[in-house]
Amino acid sequence: MRGIVPRKIKGFRDLGPGLNGLKWQIINAASKVYRSYGFEHWDTPIPEYADCLGKYLPDSDSVAEGVYSFQDPEKEPVLQADGKEMRDEWDHVVMENQFVTLRYDLTAPLARLYAERLWLRHLKEPFQENKTPYFRRYQFGPVFRFEAKLDPGRFREFWQSDFDSVGTADPASDAEACMVLADAMEAVGLKRGSYLVHVNNRKILKGFLGSLAGGGVGGEGMEQAILRVIDKADKIGAAGIEEELGRGRMDQSGALIPGLKLAGDVIKPLMGFLEKFSGEGKRQDVLANLEGMNEMGAIGREGIDELQKIEQILTRLNFDEERVVFSPTLVRGMAYYTGPVFEVQSLQTYKDDKGRERRVGSICGGGRYDDLVKNLLGLRVPATGASIGVDRLAELLTLTNQVPGTLRGRGPVLVIVFDDHLMVEYQGIARELRDAGMDVEVYYGSQRGLKKQLSYADDKNSPIAILLGEDELKKGVVTVRDLRLGKEMAAEISDKAEWKKKVQFEVSRSELLEKIRHLI
Amino acid sequence: MRGIVPRKIKGFRDLGPGLNGLKWQIINAASKVYRSYGFEHWDTPIPEYADCLGKYLPDSDSVAEGVYSFQDPEKEPVLQADGKEMRDEWDHVVMENQFVTLRYDLTAPLARLYAERLWLRHLKEPFQENKTPYFRRYQFGPVFRFEAKLDPGRFREFWQSDFDSVGTADPASDAEACMVLADAMEAVGLKRGSYLVHVNNRKILKGFLGSLAGGGVGGEGMEQAILRVIDKADKIGAAGIEEELGRGRMDQSGALIPGLKLAGDVIKPLMGFLEKFSGEGKRQDVLANLEGMNEMGAIGREGIDELQKIEQILTRLNFDEERVVFSPTLVRGMAYYTGPVFEVQSLQTYKDDKGRERRVGSICGGGRYDDLVKNLLGLRVPATGASIGVDRLAELLTLTNQVPGTLRGRGPVLVIVFDDHLMVEYQGIARELRDAGMDVEVYYGSQRGLKKQLSYADDKNSPIAILLGEDELKKGVVTVRDLRLGKEMAAEISDKAEWKKKVQFEVSRSELLEKIRHLI
Repeated sequence: MRGIVPRKIKGFRDLGPGLNGLKWQIINAASKVYRSYGFEHWDTPIPEYADCLGKYLPDSDSVAEGVYSFQDPEKEPVLQADGKEMRDEWDHVVMENQFVTLRYDLTAPLARLYAERLWLRHLKEPFQENKTPYFRRYQFGPVFRFEAKLDPGRFREFWQSDFDSVGTADPASDAEACMVLADAMEAVGLKRGSYLVHVNNRKILKGFLGSLAGGGVGGEGMEQAILRVIDKADKIGAAGIEEELGRGRMDQSGALIPGLKLAGDVIKPLMGFLEKFSGEGKRQDVLANLEGMNEMGAIGREGIDELQKIEQILTRLNFDEERVVFSPTLVRGMAYYTGPVFEVQSLQTYKDDKGRERRVGSICGGGRYDDLVKNLLGLRVPATGASIGVDRLAELLTLTNQVPGTLRGRGPVLVIVFDDHLMVEYQGIARELRDAGMDVEVYYGSQRGLKKQLSYADDKNSPIAILLGEDELKKGVVTVRDLRLGKEMAAEISDKAEWKKKVQFEVSRSELLEKIRHLI
Repeated sequence: MRGIVPRKIKGFRDLGPGLNGLKWQIINAASKVYRSYGFEHWDTPIPEYADCLGKYLPDSDSVAEGVYSFQDPEKEPVLQADGKEMRDEWDHVVMENQFVTLRYDLTAPLARLYAERLWLRHLKEPFQENKTPYFRRYQFGPVFRFEAKLDPGRFREFWQSDFDSVGTADPASDAEACMVLADAMEAVGLKRGSYLVHVNNRKILKGFLGSLAGGGVGGEGMEQAILRVIDKADKIGAAGIEEELGRGRMDQSGALIPGLKLAGDVIKPLMGFLEKFSGEGKRQDVLANLEGMNEMGAIGREGIDELQKIEQILTRLNFDEERVVFSPTLVRGMAYYTGPVFEVQSLQTYKDDKGRERRVGSICGGGRYDDLVKNLLGLRVPATGASIGVDRLAELLTLTNQVPGTLRGRGPVLVIVFDDHLMVEYQGIARELRDAGMDVEVYYGSQRGLKKQLSYADDKNSPIAILLGEDELKKGVVTVRDLRLGKEMAAEISDKAEWKKKVQFEVSRSELLEKIRHLI
């Protein structure tokens, strides 16, 4: 017999007040930084038409792979490229249940949003290349990935916090993205020196690959394949990269990872390049090293010039190598990047449950994607931006004990309920304190024992419990227990009666508010 | 030829900074009120297993109707009621792509969350009825409904902000829910007297229906059907209700709505009940009227007693009839309600685009749902709570011009970019002001004309523009234009040169920060 067992879908999770509070602290702090640079808050739907989002996920080639897709329950007209409804041979509108995808990032929906607004205008007037609107927004929210193999600590629903500038090719906007990331990291609570913004330009990699083997590695597809291999450096190391560029390799499970079968005259200089730029030097030195290479081509040159401009701004504003470095080997997974790319790495380590030293790794990523709108409209609109991985960052702060204050925060004052007949009195006390700006809860749980109620207060990290019975009501007093002091004293005082005398006392009803205010 | 036209799914929308800002203002204000009553912030996933959410939507009978459902791309074991994997005749685990639903509210996922935690504990120890945990949380987020017919102003993705107490049967917790709703409405910006919290108890309706025709209307199914008809009062009026209880009626489009075919000895007293309690009187008078009815049965009696207890608390805390009223005809659509139900109605009207006077209507709803966890675990856990319709509320505030300040809010100071060679200077100015706590944007758009940049500043509601060219740089000054003053003056001064003299002036570079601070 099939049963209904209460459960979540694998890879999804519930967030309690501790981690959830931290998540919102991150979102709010980052949003404030974004606004300080002039980005405005927009929101887009969670499901989108699959064709409008396109497919740019790392490590996946097929359209259905990596995302949650399903057919819209509603039949809608199929559209032609000119926006008109498609008709069949009997001149009936062709209707279809179109494919819908839960968004896998916030960048592809931004391209849809921007392109849709431009398209609606285009229905009235022709496109004017070079006159596309300039648009800057920030957005946060959940994104969804269906990864068939789920690594520990990875989730299928996770939150991102993004900022983007659409309609600018200016490298200054890329420089700004690096500064926004660095500022956001510190606003969130990371100490300077505990994170690094890595910057590269895909054009440099492209220029270098184009110069190999006397004329390139064999087209865009092979270039993307090589970049995907280089992007795995963290996971498979230099030896693994060399194998995957060549004959392939065996992974830990014994499965064969096919190689790209590149020739030695491609692999050797490529490995040389990766080694040469593997460290983190001065930005000026990296630039000088790049300038010194003569196999770069026009596109590589352009990439180096853009990095130069970024360097000028970073240096003028004192964003030195303690915050932002140049890393010519950085790729970033998303296939839509066309120019500068950014990644924030945490430098901190933590001990996993087996005591092994571990790094959290990448916590933010971004870059320039000049062709994303083009794929929807045929119109090139340069754009740049980046994304904070909110859940990864929350995990980092928790693992490295950098959470400001306690994770849970202070709970409400709890009014203990002894006697149903006094409920209006309990409510009156709660209201008085609440009106004075305090968080106050009256206990309504079915189990009314004092021990149960105090343990509930403890679970919620309540600072104070308020007790009132018939006797106290007659005397015009209220009993107050200082729960925080109680915890401290519990270690020092073993005698129960003495302990109680210290942490619990009577107050006249009229002085209650003043007394509680004093205690909190 | 099929094309990709950038578009959203029908019934979904993008939110710009104005409406989005308002939405978050509502969410944050409501959350603060919830915390002041001791509710903690939890979050749950957006997709859930369809069987765990159950089906309790208003106006729909089939499981697939009204929601977005699809099959999980991953095959997972089918479970039996005891939580063990189901096996086939060859002892293989039965695997299936199970059905997944985008949550349609935040209450059903709460029941899943609570039941799941209890279930995991149950795997170690037996259930103890009456010893179920007490749990209070608030949550906000998007929910999804697939309504085949989409009324104007309705959306298929919309946000709710909920608070709930699980594990309490105390009517005081229902009274509290009414107070939380009233407090939240005022925190959000509604004036007292412009909204009303309506309260009823489904037990009263149930008791009354059970007394009709000398022994009830014919079971739970018919009762629910009658409640669904009564729930339409706002849409179809008393005459429409009478028709739907009887032979049925024709709607505006000419379609036939089938009736419940009830006999006159049910319809007549029912219509009498609806008429008797249609107005809003004193709560005490409503209670007296209810007490005076002798056809109520034990369940109806219980309902009246609970309203009495709610009344005591409301009165003690001065929540009078200007804020909370008793409405014995109130139903609320969700099928899971078992006791007290709440609804907040806006009393305000607005003019629609055809100039007709309209009401926004219901903006919050809730109630007691004692059986929701039972449907998942077989264990009865009493619970109560309510939900704010964030989008409806934002719409109300906009339509009735109650938005605090301008909808858009103040934009960033804009640094105008004339000359690429001065980019580091522009950046330096922006940084200095930003470090002083201001929102400052440097313009990177591709179109660099001054007019274009000023129109961009205008779109973003920027208060000030900062201008700097080679000449000014040499002189050590910066030009400041007061855009807000400019707008005011534009009406008064027609002479362009004179206008410019008033609103634009030079400041020495070193005094810039002080000057801008003064202007803002």
